[in-house]
Amino acid sequence: MIAYLDNSATTKVLDSVKDIMIKVMNEDFGNPSSLHLKGVDAEKYIKDAKENIAKILKVKEGEIFFTSGGTESNNMALIGFAMANKRAGNHIITSGIEHASILNTAKFLEEQGFRVSYIPVDKDGVIDMDKLKAEVCEDTILVSVMHVNNEIGSIQPIEEIVKVVKAKNSNVKVHVDAIQSFGKLTIQPKKIGVDMLSVSGHKIHGPKGSGFLYIAEGVKVKPILIGGGQEKGMRSGTQNVPAIAGLGVAAKENYSDFAGKQAKMIELKDYFIDRVSNIPNVKINSKKGMEGAPHIISVSFIGVRSEVMLHTLEEYDIFISAGSACSSNKKAHVSDTLKGIGLSNEELDSTVRFSLSYLSTKEEVDYCIDTIEKNIEMLRKYVRK
Amino acid sequence: MIAYLDNSATTKVLDSVKDIMIKVMNEDFGNPSSLHLKGVDAEKYIKDAKENIAKILKVKEGEIFFTSGGTESNNMALIGFAMANKRAGNHIITSGIEHASILNTAKFLEEQGFRVSYIPVDKDGVIDMDKLKAEVCEDTILVSVMHVNNEIGSIQPIEEIVKVVKAKNSNVKVHVDAIQSFGKLTIQPKKIGVDMLSVSGHKIHGPKGSGFLYIAEGVKVKPILIGGGQEKGMRSGTQNVPAIAGLGVAAKENYSDFAGKQAKMIELKDYFIDRVSNIPNVKINSKKGMEGAPHIISVSFIGVRSEVMLHTLEEYDIFISAGSACSSNKKAHVSDTLKGIGLSNEELDSTVRFSLSYLSTKEEVDYCIDTIEKNIEMLRKYVRK
Repeated sequence: MIAYLDNSATTKVLDSVKDIMIKVMNEDFGNPSSLHLKGVDAEKYIKDAKENIAKILKVKEGEIFFTSGGTESNNMALIGFAMANKRAGNHIITSGIEHASILNTAKFLEEQGFRVSYIPVDKDGVIDMDKLKAEVCEDTILVSVMHVNNEIGSIQPIEEIVKVVKAKNSNVKVHVDAIQSFGKLTIQPKKIGVDMLSVSGHKIHGPKGSGFLYIAEGVKVKPILIGGGQEKGMRSGTQNVPAIAGLGVAAKENYSDFAGKQAKMIELKDYFIDRVSNIPNVKINSKKGMEGAPHIISVSFIGVRSEVMLHTLEEYDIFISAGSACSSNKKAHVSDTLKGIGLSNEELDSTVRFSLSYLSTKEEVDYCIDTIEKNIEMLRKYVRK
Repeated sequence: MIAYLDNSATTKVLDSVKDIMIKVMNEDFGNPSSLHLKGVDAEKYIKDAKENIAKILKVKEGEIFFTSGGTESNNMALIGFAMANKRAGNHIITSGIEHASILNTAKFLEEQGFRVSYIPVDKDGVIDMDKLKAEVCEDTILVSVMHVNNEIGSIQPIEEIVKVVKAKNSNVKVHVDAIQSFGKLTIQPKKIGVDMLSVSGHKIHGPKGSGFLYIAEGVKVKPILIGGGQEKGMRSGTQNVPAIAGLGVAAKENYSDFAGKQAKMIELKDYFIDRVSNIPNVKINSKKGMEGAPHIISVSFIGVRSEVMLHTLEEYDIFISAGSACSSNKKAHVSDTLKGIGLSNEELDSTVRFSLSYLSTKEEVDYCIDTIEKNIEMLRKYVRK
């Protein structure tokens, strides 16, 4: 059998997503900017997708801007906001365990003259609220935090973060990288005062090359892709209609019977953690139940290097990740997140990530754990010098 | 019957493009950054697509960088180059008839402190070479010109432009927006000294959301999307593998029996121009044969407003464009290109664009012209006040 347990890297598109993409490509292939019927027909898919997403987030359709994916959404949120608001202040706050599309963009903004503070996390991967509070100042314009960490599944207390930040300086806007949490947790940005929110399609069984940025009405953001003025001037370029339509379908499907899907993932995650805990000399870096994301399990198999575990499982058609696969740096690199939560060098070297989706099965989990149990003693002997 | 004559706005994907996209989505859906086999399999599609494209352009695979489309490619060429080379100079040259993704990006760079010269065109839509030569100075770092104009199909003499520019200042780099010419003309950037070249997938029966930028080895460009370091750090974000694979297939198909495809388009264009010339009081803004692009026919039907013509033809399932449909500004706006070639107000108001692809047929053209002939007298009476 095959056990694809790398759903935080990417997911397989749903049949319903593929179907609508094929329909758009076959029948409604027009350019949504065209004045004629082929353009109007194409535009309907964009409107439908915005409607679906706006309903899920409980925001207005006009607050959703489609992008080419999570990285672009995060770049737009940081660079576009910083460019539009630099007169208001020069200081940006983020955490030390963000995705590369935030961390490296923050470094870019430092080169452009912005000051960036990186808030550390505790051993559970949660932001130090006292340090966050201490950093917010008059000059702060933006706080950007991820909702769910992609490597260990820690959940940031977004509502509390918004409260703490805005209590100290009500002008500060808050951006949430929800790329790992959309489809896994309930998200209502407007309700809790989040000003911008990034989502990627291919993490929720939607198309690669799709994503969006929610921008609350009134929040000033400059476009980072300039041209024909699509997406109300916020994101130029002919809209990728098949992908946008697919993203809308994937989002709608993900949030229909959402409680059931979420409960299933949590049950499966907890079952995974219970079983893997029985293996000796193992450190689990993720939390059970609702204390962690429903789909991410980070495990350090002490004495087995992560790539060795990954490639061993690969031979059994079990696909997992060594750290985060969202980076093209294929060489092992020391993870900021895993360092951030205080893992020892030995633990760092041996950490792998298993990630579920609502389509994952108990059979996959059993097959994976059985295979690890069968091989781990050999692997530990083999690797030890 | 249906006559889709708006191929410069967008094209229908080939079945072979759709097939490979479906195959990738079904079977090889991995994240190319993943270390395991699913990632390796996905990466092969990217390598294949680069190989196909590099062969067509006669450049190295490593000089091709995939983007989300033409607008991003153009933005990357201008902004990324300007950012990387601002110490070398402050002056950029482009033409007055570029696509919005160049013109508006140039305006953005002006806001960032760059000086931009906009070279005018003659009545045929070709750049004034004397004025171009006069503008090149010590401070010039980049010249960006489109190969084929999207509204009238005029062809810029790229080889001559490169020679003139580099003869005056050999440090200047030349970017070519080839979005309307790739698939229609033979393009060999390296051979003629072009340093960067933008292409979009959905103009050549490839997927929306796909494109690339050719960057000659040694040319310094900073990424405009920052993150995980995909595409050798030049374009972060999980690669859109289905779209990239589709782009590779579309490019390969377009350039197989290319001479035949090109001859067919030219023959059809010339036939279109011959037939439309028989209609009284018509001004044709495009050139026959190889003097213009093989696929674009701009026509002013004096006395019939362009939207009226567009919507009349739409009722017959004939799809054309009023000006360029690459802009989301759905209201009629005065085209810089049409003004640039000196059209009168009356001509401006009545200009529409027909655009072919190598899949267009004589039947479509006949149906279109027959329909115009049948309706034009009525339209002219109807509109006249």
